[in-house]
Amino acid sequence: MKRIKLEVAYDGTNYCGWQIQPGQPTIEGVLNRVLSDVLKETVTVTGASRTDAGVHAYGNVAVFDTDTPVPPDRISLAVNPHLPADIKTMNSCQVSGDFHPRFADTIKTYEYHIQTGPVAIPACRLYSCWIPRHPDIAAMTEAGSYLTGTHDFKSFCAAGAQVKTTVRTVTHVGVREEEILPGIKHIVITVSGEGFLYNMVRIMAGTLLKAGFHAWPPEYIIKILEGRDRRLAGETAPAKGLFLKKIKYL
Amino acid sequence: MKRIKLEVAYDGTNYCGWQIQPGQPTIEGVLNRVLSDVLKETVTVTGASRTDAGVHAYGNVAVFDTDTPVPPDRISLAVNPHLPADIKTMNSCQVSGDFHPRFADTIKTYEYHIQTGPVAIPACRLYSCWIPRHPDIAAMTEAGSYLTGTHDFKSFCAAGAQVKTTVRTVTHVGVREEEILPGIKHIVITVSGEGFLYNMVRIMAGTLLKAGFHAWPPEYIIKILEGRDRRLAGETAPAKGLFLKKIKYL
Repeated sequence: MKRIKLEVAYDGTNYCGWQIQPGQPTIEGVLNRVLSDVLKETVTVTGASRTDAGVHAYGNVAVFDTDTPVPPDRISLAVNPHLPADIKTMNSCQVSGDFHPRFADTIKTYEYHIQTGPVAIPACRLYSCWIPRHPDIAAMTEAGSYLTGTHDFKSFCAAGAQVKTTVRTVTHVGVREEEILPGIKHIVITVSGEGFLYNMVRIMAGTLLKAGFHAWPPEYIIKILEGRDRRLAGETAPAKGLFLKKIKYL
Repeated sequence: MKRIKLEVAYDGTNYCGWQIQPGQPTIEGVLNRVLSDVLKETVTVTGASRTDAGVHAYGNVAVFDTDTPVPPDRISLAVNPHLPADIKTMNSCQVSGDFHPRFADTIKTYEYHIQTGPVAIPACRLYSCWIPRHPDIAAMTEAGSYLTGTHDFKSFCAAGAQVKTTVRTVTHVGVREEEILPGIKHIVITVSGEGFLYNMVRIMAGTLLKAGFHAWPPEYIIKILEGRDRRLAGETAPAKGLFLKKIKYL
């Protein structure tokens, strides 16, 4: 019996998220079905991040145990032709039998994509959130700087989420923009950290946008963190702008 | 009666191209129907470029005559909420009554998008052509330089196309690449010119890729042009990688 780690990229548009739900299309459900078909044994994957409906990934991680004779690094190539076009594995490798994708120490990197300008560009609509006005990127960057470090992120956690502690360490927050057409910009917020609460990146994106539109001064982030109250932070930005980019195992 | 010019952006994935075909979803068909509904009169648009099935646009141009009291520059805003998410107008303005979007002098700019690397990334699949290997961008750029200028592009025209002359002027060919994930690149070929033959940009893309994979030296482009034979050039690259970016009226 070998334990296999897959990096998985997907377009979340047509899925009800990662986690299996009876009668609903899910990433986990498709992986279990296709891996079982290809490897000719019952495969049950464990995911690193149970992304929400509509969230995309370049590098979520799935782990499963198998007796297949297919070499570990060839499993990715063997399974991809049988997966739908909106789910592909990036690579595969063997890991130790006690490796658990959620309980190991990691740095996760997310990107949140925003398209700004007067028109919601059709070719951007599935992978970004559209906002008509252009935010102030310098203000967003400064606001983001107050989010880095080890803080109690209770204000950035969906209300009602059950967790032992809401203290997390964010190692990087960056904001960049590019003019893709005259008057049309593509903004990417990059967030890396050792752990994330439920909806944390999407609430961070909504909060940085508040600073970007000068609803709040950048340093108001400090007050939001101190207040430990979800109602103090900005809105939860829509799922379709969020990409789980990379999970680095430490 | 006023003549109105619209810039139109669309995601061509779910359309059988620009031009109306009975019983098929087309960009022209949707524009006629929605403009007629919103302006409460029968509207018939004339397009600048009858893009093929699956081709996308940031700035195709549609022109129509109307008696609407809606101010010309507000028509775009008025119609957008009634258009589907995969077709939007970028702006609208009044033009002179003898303006014709196809017979006026223009510089058209196209982009051809390619994603390279071992895996076809799900979030790129609708808007780029996937090629597993990475081509040599310097060789593609050099090959592209031989395409600029006024040439007989008969070798770069779909066989059987009926045109008076296959001489066209290409003002710019550029190739750039960006690593979007480790080992995964996004390549954009930009082509501008005063006129294009049927499938010309897609054949240029297929031909530059031949140079990029060293199947041909870059200067072989000169022989292809001189030969005036479609069979000498590369394959027609898939529609989904092509964007009509801008039509500049001179």
